[in-house]
Amino acid sequence: MSPPTNPSAFSQPDRPVADGDARVLDAINSPADLKKLPPDELPRLAREIRDEIIAVTSRNGGHVGPNLGVVELTIALHRVFDTPKDQIVFDVSHQAYVHKLLTGRRGEFFKKLRHTGGVSGFCNRAESPHDSFGAGHAGTALSAALGMAAARDLNGTGEHVVAVCGDGAFTCGVTMEALNNIITSTKRLIVILNDNEWSIARNVGAISRYLTRLSTSPTYNKIHNDLEKFFTSLPRGQEMHRTWMKWKRETKDFFVESSLFEKYGLRYIGPVNGHDIDELAARLEFAKQSDSPILVHVLTKKGLGLPAAINSPEKFHGASPYDPATGETVKTDAPPAWQEVFGRTLTKFAKADPRIVGITAAMPSGTGLNHLAAELPRQFFDVGIAEEHAVVFAAGLATKNIRPVVAIYSTFLQRSLDPILHDVCLQNLPVTFCMDRAGLSPNDGATHHGLFDIAYLRLVPNAVIMQPKDEDELVDMMHTALTANAPMFIRYPRGAAQGVPVKAEPSALPVGKAEVLREGAHAMIWALGTMVGDALALSDRLALENNLSVGVVNARFAKPLDSELLLAHAAKAPLLVTMEDHVITGGFGGAVLETLQQAGVTTPVECIGWPDAFVEHGTDAATLRAAHGLSPEAMRDRVLRALHSAAP
Amino acid sequence: MSPPTNPSAFSQPDRPVADGDARVLDAINSPADLKKLPPDELPRLAREIRDEIIAVTSRNGGHVGPNLGVVELTIALHRVFDTPKDQIVFDVSHQAYVHKLLTGRRGEFFKKLRHTGGVSGFCNRAESPHDSFGAGHAGTALSAALGMAAARDLNGTGEHVVAVCGDGAFTCGVTMEALNNIITSTKRLIVILNDNEWSIARNVGAISRYLTRLSTSPTYNKIHNDLEKFFTSLPRGQEMHRTWMKWKRETKDFFVESSLFEKYGLRYIGPVNGHDIDELAARLEFAKQSDSPILVHVLTKKGLGLPAAINSPEKFHGASPYDPATGETVKTDAPPAWQEVFGRTLTKFAKADPRIVGITAAMPSGTGLNHLAAELPRQFFDVGIAEEHAVVFAAGLATKNIRPVVAIYSTFLQRSLDPILHDVCLQNLPVTFCMDRAGLSPNDGATHHGLFDIAYLRLVPNAVIMQPKDEDELVDMMHTALTANAPMFIRYPRGAAQGVPVKAEPSALPVGKAEVLREGAHAMIWALGTMVGDALALSDRLALENNLSVGVVNARFAKPLDSELLLAHAAKAPLLVTMEDHVITGGFGGAVLETLQQAGVTTPVECIGWPDAFVEHGTDAATLRAAHGLSPEAMRDRVLRALHSAAP
Repeated sequence: MSPPTNPSAFSQPDRPVADGDARVLDAINSPADLKKLPPDELPRLAREIRDEIIAVTSRNGGHVGPNLGVVELTIALHRVFDTPKDQIVFDVSHQAYVHKLLTGRRGEFFKKLRHTGGVSGFCNRAESPHDSFGAGHAGTALSAALGMAAARDLNGTGEHVVAVCGDGAFTCGVTMEALNNIITSTKRLIVILNDNEWSIARNVGAISRYLTRLSTSPTYNKIHNDLEKFFTSLPRGQEMHRTWMKWKRETKDFFVESSLFEKYGLRYIGPVNGHDIDELAARLEFAKQSDSPILVHVLTKKGLGLPAAINSPEKFHGASPYDPATGETVKTDAPPAWQEVFGRTLTKFAKADPRIVGITAAMPSGTGLNHLAAELPRQFFDVGIAEEHAVVFAAGLATKNIRPVVAIYSTFLQRSLDPILHDVCLQNLPVTFCMDRAGLSPNDGATHHGLFDIAYLRLVPNAVIMQPKDEDELVDMMHTALTANAPMFIRYPRGAAQGVPVKAEPSALPVGKAEVLREGAHAMIWALGTMVGDALALSDRLALENNLSVGVVNARFAKPLDSELLLAHAAKAPLLVTMEDHVITGGFGGAVLETLQQAGVTTPVECIGWPDAFVEHGTDAATLRAAHGLSPEAMRDRVLRALHSAAP
Repeated sequence: MSPPTNPSAFSQPDRPVADGDARVLDAINSPADLKKLPPDELPRLAREIRDEIIAVTSRNGGHVGPNLGVVELTIALHRVFDTPKDQIVFDVSHQAYVHKLLTGRRGEFFKKLRHTGGVSGFCNRAESPHDSFGAGHAGTALSAALGMAAARDLNGTGEHVVAVCGDGAFTCGVTMEALNNIITSTKRLIVILNDNEWSIARNVGAISRYLTRLSTSPTYNKIHNDLEKFFTSLPRGQEMHRTWMKWKRETKDFFVESSLFEKYGLRYIGPVNGHDIDELAARLEFAKQSDSPILVHVLTKKGLGLPAAINSPEKFHGASPYDPATGETVKTDAPPAWQEVFGRTLTKFAKADPRIVGITAAMPSGTGLNHLAAELPRQFFDVGIAEEHAVVFAAGLATKNIRPVVAIYSTFLQRSLDPILHDVCLQNLPVTFCMDRAGLSPNDGATHHGLFDIAYLRLVPNAVIMQPKDEDELVDMMHTALTANAPMFIRYPRGAAQGVPVKAEPSALPVGKAEVLREGAHAMIWALGTMVGDALALSDRLALENNLSVGVVNARFAKPLDSELLLAHAAKAPLLVTMEDHVITGGFGGAVLETLQQAGVTTPVECIGWPDAFVEHGTDAATLRAAHGLSPEAMRDRVLRALHSAAP
């Protein structure tokens, strides 16, 4: 078949697999079993895999759309390549569920997807030798695969290395850096461009437009694709294809435009229908024989097999538990999420002040900026998966009386440390950073927890870092940041906020001033953000169970600390306790220790936070906190021990 | 004239300006003065500027080659545009000396280039309104300029925004992220591609080859350039040019290949001879009228006007003081630099173990990897100005039994925090990081000091961070890192090492163990790296002048700390002192405080390091240290005060 130029041409699975049938999938324990299947059973396998993904993600949540889109592609990859000898590197790797089902991780392990003891939602080298490289952040696959290919060349072995990258990866700097390096680093690398015309949000920028043109241009496809298919069908196709490519180069693409990828020295084949296993396998076999780096452009349909996911691609990119029949999200009584409050508040502020703009790196819904996008599109910028550019772009805007708000998840903002230092804070420009997912992100695991941001921001001169105890204070902090004339960072966690009412008009908070919520004689807890609630509960418990008077301070600012108040407390309390949803190393507790040291004060301090380790995925925050010494009981015991040691 | 296809075709300045002549330059106090000059005086002005740059940089050091290359381009920019109303954003901005000379910063201020009280070597918003954006790290100009252009559109004003980017910038992810965003962010942006076929080191990768082809292809140039020149010469050239571009797009470049930049939605004009002021001005005037984003491809010759700089482009990229007649570096008696020891040692190790490879992000000489490149080219990778890719690429190599050593300056490694966390340390892969310029980098100033790396690395689980006290210990640390099976970070400063002999065979150091150099009864100083020398001097002085017994520990590891030894010292010494060439915030001293806190120990600590501020450029380290409380006397006074407070 010729590649469809329009997604609606993709065939839909024709029927669900009946419950009583023995499943083909149940006999697949490794890629070797897959290779033994007759080709005519593969469409049935694809249906079973889709059913399994829908069954599990509708209960556990997860990356539904991306996985439903790559069922046939992943089957074809494992029919043609031989993992773990060959390496398949999945970019982001949230689309690796199919790969996991085919490499010995189906059954009960898969049913606990993203839960404690279950399969991870991402590739993980510790989980399987078939996972050649872990990920969770976008754009790294091409670089990692290029490293593997270069290693293979140095080692003198012959295995294949395949990078599977979404179209969004090509908006991301590190992918483009790798693309530039391919021709000087290896002669053998296979790049699959999994083009689902989407990179979490609808793609933005030139690359997106370019790929659309490449996929739909009749001139290009007619000449290019017919020739490609002709070559791949020939016994000596490789050789003739090379001749054609050489001729194309030498005639300066006189008749056929060269693709962007050819300018980077890659051979280009495609577009290929990503839901036709035979077609995919044929093209991958051809790519396997290529003696120069080659890109296979595959068109896939995100969410294929679940109508709700096709109709709401952004919602079903990474979904909460849902009803598979209707696509409705499973309802909870939780209050609005932090990002909802952020997004609606920013829209309100931006209506009142046209200088305010919002910037997202391909996460309009995840960050809550979708509200701004819908209501004030001129004041909204989605720059693609481009966290560095997002920040430098904001710095440029801020030089000219615009007030940019950069909304990036805590873990992804790690990419922007240099722009934050070099472009924003060194020049002391008024850019506001709103960091969603600061703190634990339980189901996603180690690549997604926002447990490092205070440490990597606290070192930055001129940075002001704050965290609200509830959504009303979030709004106050946004107001404070946007009326300041300096770089401001606000962190808040994933999920539901506290459910407190938000006042009609925000208050400006004095920068670097904490709020005493409860005085205490035996100890003072300095808690940051959502840990204020934990601190109050701990204080109640210690009063009730141990007859102790423990005060609680809402620190508000991790930088600058309220050193005056802190030193006053250090002078009278026998013990200070710090609490943060962040690693201890270099975090808020560290800031307290440094402040006391600079004042020459030696009051004992107990620092409570996450240990110096990567935290795995788990069913929920309580499970993970219990596993890492942060359960309510563990925190109580630590404070009691510290009080005991501190007693004069 | 038609653009030269070969750099030797560039004309050389024909004679130096005689001492007795009144200089045209001396009457230029602002761009307005430049605009008044008759065109026939401009070549003379260019010669005078070259003479001034050579005179000053031969004494002070500086970026000689890049500035000699852009004399005519900068003159043309200031003839055509109107700063500070228009914004010119220089990428890296080490090539802004000419711009500074033309914008009121000539004379004595310029003669103190890169010295205390003199002009900065980079653009600096605090120095002049003509410096629209500061820089020092490569690749940010396009993003910043795009932010300014978007702000201009929001503000509804009409000024021009011009980004001046070297060819190396297009190897850099953030530039490519910005390039992808141009067409969706503004309709008016002028990008100057200053193509000197070089990005510090010879460019690498596909972009470099592509630009060479673009600049030298006779087919391309003949059709393309003749048409461009034809259009620019016409009174209604803009309109006809648009028609031609449209026709090109619609015919799918049937006759003329489209450039890479056109695929990103930019109009492309060039190549232009970057040393012909008339030609440059004509093309810039044309670009000024463009109602879509436009890239002007300018060919320049780095070092033009100084034969030694043309012959040794890498040496004269950023040069130490030199003899302008011969190009010889002014000799000093200093011992070999740290990077020399690093580079020669790595070459020796890599000869013995073919698994060892070196990776640089466009800094082979600066890092010392030039030795490896020369002797073992197969084990050397220059990836361009691509610090993120460098690290992920290393991670990929490390999965397949290769032992990569990533050599990146401390300040530029800020770009790699996310790959360090997400790709290397989360997967615990054996990548060794060698961070040159860790600590103060006096002449370059705020964008180049390596004062943050301990803080941004210490938060990373699995990271081991060390700093040698001398070059012999550097070699031991490299040996230790390369024989470990985990991520390892070694930091060392700019400039000459200590001059101690290096033993024939390295020793493996026990990870996380410190070295006691001198016991002390009144206090123990824990010093990291080169601060060990300062600590010994301070200990001597306190013994001699104050009759105090102060011990000195060579900490060796900032992570993991030698907590056993530290706690033993805390138990017996009345005071601990930490010393580091790094900011105090979150640094080595912070690690000491956290270790004591976790053990419930409250021994007083005095932390000595850089304050929480950006440090400016200065004549030398002693000047800057004195200005920030780190002179030998200031450090002595702090220890004495702390001893006094700590006394029971």
